[in-house]
Amino acid sequence: MNVLKQSHHIRSLSDATTVAQLLSQQFALTAIERDRAGGTPKYERDLIRQSGLLSLSIPAELGGFSGRWQDVLDVVRIFAQADSSLAHVFAFHHLHLATIRLFGSPTQWHNWFKLTAEKSWFWGNALNPLDKRTTVKYQDQGWYEFSGKKSFCSGAIDSEMLIASAVDEPSGKLLIAAIPTARSGITLYHDWDNIGQRQTDSGSAIFERVRVEEKDMLLNPGPLSTPFASLRPLIAQLIFINMFLGIAEGAFAEAKHYTQNETRAWFLSDVEHANEDPYTLRHYGEFWLQLESLRLLNQHAIAKLQAAWDIGESLTADQRGEVSLAVATAKVAATRTSLDITSRIFEVTGARATHAALRLDRFWRNVRTQTLHDPVEYKLKDLGDWALNDRYPKASFYS
Amino acid sequence: MNVLKQSHHIRSLSDATTVAQLLSQQFALTAIERDRAGGTPKYERDLIRQSGLLSLSIPAELGGFSGRWQDVLDVVRIFAQADSSLAHVFAFHHLHLATIRLFGSPTQWHNWFKLTAEKSWFWGNALNPLDKRTTVKYQDQGWYEFSGKKSFCSGAIDSEMLIASAVDEPSGKLLIAAIPTARSGITLYHDWDNIGQRQTDSGSAIFERVRVEEKDMLLNPGPLSTPFASLRPLIAQLIFINMFLGIAEGAFAEAKHYTQNETRAWFLSDVEHANEDPYTLRHYGEFWLQLESLRLLNQHAIAKLQAAWDIGESLTADQRGEVSLAVATAKVAATRTSLDITSRIFEVTGARATHAALRLDRFWRNVRTQTLHDPVEYKLKDLGDWALNDRYPKASFYS
Amino acid sequence: MNVLKQSHHIRSLSDATTVAQLLSQQFALTAIERDRAGGTPKYERDLIRQSGLLSLSIPAELGGFSGRWQDVLDVVRIFAQADSSLAHVFAFHHLHLATIRLFGSPTQWHNWFKLTAEKSWFWGNALNPLDKRTTVKYQDQGWYEFSGKKSFCSGAIDSEMLIASAVDEPSGKLLIAAIPTARSGITLYHDWDNIGQRQTDSGSAIFERVRVEEKDMLLNPGPLSTPFASLRPLIAQLIFINMFLGIAEGAFAEAKHYTQNETRAWFLSDVEHANEDPYTLRHYGEFWLQLESLRLLNQHAIAKLQAAWDIGESLTADQRGEVSLAVATAKVAATRTSLDITSRIFEVTGARATHAALRLDRFWRNVRTQTLHDPVEYKLKDLGDWALNDRYPKASFYS
Amino acid sequence: MNVLKQSHHIRSLSDATTVAQLLSQQFALTAIERDRAGGTPKYERDLIRQSGLLSLSIPAELGGFSGRWQDVLDVVRIFAQADSSLAHVFAFHHLHLATIRLFGSPTQWHNWFKLTAEKSWFWGNALNPLDKRTTVKYQDQGWYEFSGKKSFCSGAIDSEMLIASAVDEPSGKLLIAAIPTARSGITLYHDWDNIGQRQTDSGSAIFERVRVEEKDMLLNPGPLSTPFASLRPLIAQLIFINMFLGIAEGAFAEAKHYTQNETRAWFLSDVEHANEDPYTLRHYGEFWLQLESLRLLNQHAIAKLQAAWDIGESLTADQRGEVSLAVATAKVAATRTSLDITSRIFEVTGARATHAALRLDRFWRNVRTQTLHDPVEYKLKDLGDWALNDRYPKASFYS
Repeated sequence: MNVLKQSHHIRSLSDATTVAQLLSQQFALTAIERDRAGGTPKYERDLIRQSGLLSLSIPAELGGFSGRWQDVLDVVRIFAQADSSLAHVFAFHHLHLATIRLFGSPTQWHNWFKLTAEKSWFWGNALNPLDKRTTVKYQDQGWYEFSGKKSFCSGAIDSEMLIASAVDEPSGKLLIAAIPTARSGITLYHDWDNIGQRQTDSGSAIFERVRVEEKDMLLNPGPLSTPFASLRPLIAQLIFINMFLGIAEGAFAEAKHYTQNETRAWFLSDVEHANEDPYTLRHYGEFWLQLESLRLLNQHAIAKLQAAWDIGESLTADQRGEVSLAVATAKVAATRTSLDITSRIFEVTGARATHAALRLDRFWRNVRTQTLHDPVEYKLKDLGDWALNDRYPKASFYS
Repeated sequence: MNVLKQSHHIRSLSDATTVAQLLSQQFALTAIERDRAGGTPKYERDLIRQSGLLSLSIPAELGGFSGRWQDVLDVVRIFAQADSSLAHVFAFHHLHLATIRLFGSPTQWHNWFKLTAEKSWFWGNALNPLDKRTTVKYQDQGWYEFSGKKSFCSGAIDSEMLIASAVDEPSGKLLIAAIPTARSGITLYHDWDNIGQRQTDSGSAIFERVRVEEKDMLLNPGPLSTPFASLRPLIAQLIFINMFLGIAEGAFAEAKHYTQNETRAWFLSDVEHANEDPYTLRHYGEFWLQLESLRLLNQHAIAKLQAAWDIGESLTADQRGEVSLAVATAKVAATRTSLDITSRIFEVTGARATHAALRLDRFWRNVRTQTLHDPVEYKLKDLGDWALNDRYPKASFYS
Repeated sequence: MNVLKQSHHIRSLSDATTVAQLLSQQFALTAIERDRAGGTPKYERDLIRQSGLLSLSIPAELGGFSGRWQDVLDVVRIFAQADSSLAHVFAFHHLHLATIRLFGSPTQWHNWFKLTAEKSWFWGNALNPLDKRTTVKYQDQGWYEFSGKKSFCSGAIDSEMLIASAVDEPSGKLLIAAIPTARSGITLYHDWDNIGQRQTDSGSAIFERVRVEEKDMLLNPGPLSTPFASLRPLIAQLIFINMFLGIAEGAFAEAKHYTQNETRAWFLSDVEHANEDPYTLRHYGEFWLQLESLRLLNQHAIAKLQAAWDIGESLTADQRGEVSLAVATAKVAATRTSLDITSRIFEVTGARATHAALRLDRFWRNVRTQTLHDPVEYKLKDLGDWALNDRYPKASFYS
Repeated sequence: MNVLKQSHHIRSLSDATTVAQLLSQQFALTAIERDRAGGTPKYERDLIRQSGLLSLSIPAELGGFSGRWQDVLDVVRIFAQADSSLAHVFAFHHLHLATIRLFGSPTQWHNWFKLTAEKSWFWGNALNPLDKRTTVKYQDQGWYEFSGKKSFCSGAIDSEMLIASAVDEPSGKLLIAAIPTARSGITLYHDWDNIGQRQTDSGSAIFERVRVEEKDMLLNPGPLSTPFASLRPLIAQLIFINMFLGIAEGAFAEAKHYTQNETRAWFLSDVEHANEDPYTLRHYGEFWLQLESLRLLNQHAIAKLQAAWDIGESLTADQRGEVSLAVATAKVAATRTSLDITSRIFEVTGARATHAALRLDRFWRNVRTQTLHDPVEYKLKDLGDWALNDRYPKASFYS
């Protein structure tokens, strides 16, 4: 363990992918067992804490590594190749940091970034724009009170901080705050038991008259208030893209190893080894074509996001629209490619690869679950509206 | 229980689908839990035993119901809508009866059919043409000895009789026998733990110097010896087709119920209810098109099989080729349709439908597992060889 | 010519397909040249006139052959294999007869059927429900006056009779009449020059104060007035299905002949002859699967139509809905299959098959043109509305 | 004309795309008419000659513009948007220059490059590796003699120079030479009349004892002799990719304009204008996704080619393999995307867009013709062989 702690710790930005790969290899050893078990991957979350990668996107001057989006998303993808649950909570941690950065004031994010880097905080999710059951009321004493239920709180369990949303009923506005997970009145349920992403703890929570100070409310500039602030959902979408790509690459790698080492040539084929079968080669050709296309679309979208991020608060709606378009394009491809490859790998491995010990179905179960976050058909519609009507996707929490 | 036994028993052929539906409804109640548990569905197998449906394909004069292939496959499909493991073992039971009928002598099948009807025997599988590890040796004393390992012995556990194959090493010929499951020297392993078809007990077996009398060997006319005998693999393929169709129909029905009752309209759509969403309707339109096409291809193939079956021993190779073609066509469609629908149902139900309590992924896991029995690409090649070169598929244990 | 007249004349219903095949072979000889030329296939239309097939759907007691829809549509498909323009005008002739039957009174259709059989009349189209430019005004003197432009008047040129529609502006209702093509005030333009269906004369017409007697108006029961009358658009859709299937079959047959006789094995393949190439076989397998599925869907729809037709005026809306559903299902498949096969045939024939002398692109151009009659996406939506919401397609001139 | 000559002439590399666009707009004015006519686009070829773009890829020190592959292929794509025949012959001209560069000696290509730049020579094709009918014999007097037939000689008519191949029968080797088109013994036939690429003059030629001097033979290093020389077929493939992409972009642009300005909303839709139809938007979304993916794959492949080109003679087989892989990937995507979009544009324009005056089918006819140059299935197989077996595509004249 001591050795591990030392060897898997990032000391400079250039270590990030190496450390991520070492962790990913370690996650892979238990991924099958943990997929079966579900629950909180406490040990692996602590390995991530110790790795320093939770500070990857934090500026060096605030104690982090000044990683760019490419760096963060590379780690997400590397994790997802082995374990997309850990990829998810790791990625969302950085999304939450970006949320403070984009919706909050400099004082707020300076402070929280420093603390996060210093204390290896893990941030979790309690923000769900479509779940209106949690409401917020301003109390005359000068604080806010959050009350109600919440679903899909990925990574909230075993987190130090939460990004939480609540509806201000009179105005219908969504308000967002950063709240210590241990704050009195918050109960997190261990009730996530779904077909995929089984260790994301994406279960429910209850807020019972949770007190939130004004200084913890992200009111200035606030959610989706400017084109720059509206980059937040695009980062979320890019995270999904990199998770899906990572899962597809992981599935591809396992299938390739299996075909090479285990699969037998079909007795009616003219070849001796399965890896010369013309139809098997055709399948792998399709996999390659899809993966390469997706990798390029992803790179393109990351570059667009980074350019917009670097512009900062002066980002225009059209510039934001360009990012949105590149992200939506990659999202559709990521959804299709990952679903197709994770289902079709079985056709190049054969019947014996359905053995539960291999749990090769987990790749499909993971993308099938996560690709439902928002309907891909509406991304396609957005693309069409651009292609035909020259209209950028409208900013929302999903586009 | 008493009520159940009585009410779910077939008294005449016309009861068959009603009884099958009642059983299917009962299977549905525990299908999710049993999918999780795996193992042998002893209680449900006994319900099938008690139902009389194991005698469905046996001629009335031998104690059965003179069911035609349409009748048998209707039951398979009805079972598969709720539980494709039970559909599998039930269907293979009738395949085994057909195996005796096609590969054995009249004395043999008369006798076994009678006993099966009388004692509600369940037949299980120990025939695997591609697994050459079990060999047979003729003993000078006048009997045969089977020895070696076997995989994919679906339904062997809790069966009374087995259809078992072994290779005669000098000639390379596959010999097949009907053997009591309890015969000394046969060990069946409870080692089937795969991603789908989890209650088929398709695990392994070992034959240790198992003695088989000459009268139990299916030597006359023997396996695939004539066009008529070669209908056996086509019956096996039709069973898969009806399993896949049944699974797809089951998935469709659950999705429809969920969309109607649970799914919310997407907040960016222009509709109030999910069941008016233009893209959701499009998905359902695709489901319908695929299901209808498959239903017709299946009906066509069943009719061809029955016509060939009715011709009997004088069936010509070309007449057998016609059946083979219709079956291969339906098989490709069944594979594609069932994989597509069982994966895409989630796009019309939404993220919450991934909850493990629903286990909606079992439909996909079941078809994904069973569709690997033999590679669909080679069925497509067979179709091409017919379409372009006017050559019927060559008879084998898989076509 | 004399020989021709005699040998290609139907004497009883059982001759229909034979005569159709002989005509089709004859059409095939000049189909390439006539596709290039466009215009009116006067010679071929006269062959059809002489064949007696224009009376195919007319009851024997009125001078026809009492052909059922299966008979009529078989001829349509056989013609379409060689020449889909002639298939179109021939099929629409029978659609027009059905229009009188469904929208008119017994006196009306008895009379026109008799005259058609007796004089070998060819009926043409001047009905276009979406083109509102032709209006009708009732004149106090007791007759109706049609005035205005019209597009897509397939088969109007060289016809004896027209089915013509016009809008009654006050009510917005569509009124339909049977009018002699030679009636004063009607001008038909030779202005159809489109990429496909080049000899259908689907050009424009002008009606200048055309007088139509009350007895020629189809007012009782009138257009789409009852479920039975609403079979008319379903017959139109079935005609398209059979045209598309026929075209696809014609393209397939030409491709097959070319691959067998002309195509060379690719130098990087392992085979000697193109007809053994694994990927070429795969393409043909796909063609076969699509064609077979479509043939069965088509048969199913024809049977449903005929059953509804036989019920007659007492047909219920739900019974009509059943036909509509079967037709819509087959229509989507016919559209996709015909577009796919007519484009992909080139992949199994190779570069030299693009020679203009072969004009193999005409199959694609013909289906590409005709499949735009009404958008297939809305058929798919109709299927979805049935599959999800148990609602039959609403009766309209297109569903 | 004088104005034209001046305004459409490239003066520096930075003018290239502007001049190309001006020419492309001019080609567009007559593209429909010339597609109908076929034959040699002499006037347009002369505009290209006058534009200076024939020297685009020639080094500045030899009189050209030192254009990189990106520059050349941008022009190809821009031309293809309006007229893929002119794109083809223009692109092949530069392919022929690259052929001399890669297969010939520095003396040879220095000389020919200079002359080409100086005299605005247009190079045409008489190289066809799979057509073995032209043979070459070394004559004792010190020259070579080419004799025999040839097919697919794109751009040979109205060219000044030809790249010609012939088989040395004793060795089976393909020898290649640069020969003045006017050389005695060469007859070019005006016999190209195919469904697409109608102004490429890709017809046949006969060589009758054509004398070729040793100095005109590309023997050193010779065809495909080194990894660097083997870049030649990859350039050819990249040319096709850019033609297909350009055609798809041209079709997309015309469809978009038509939908926006001409297409009517379907009467059963809930929208007022066709450009809001959910299914039309879906189609455009698909178009966009495909085009964007292809654009990125194309850019990636161009970058790989340029990097390899810049390495020069020391290029290793693996470095060449990298280019080959990127090119094959883009080629499969280009084939599919262009075929799909050029056929599906009609579904977003509607029936009236099939009017022959628009000739919108020419996009599909052009790609359908040119995509048959070599079978896409074998490219997919190459991709599979890389993905599964880590083997680069083997160098040949087609990969």
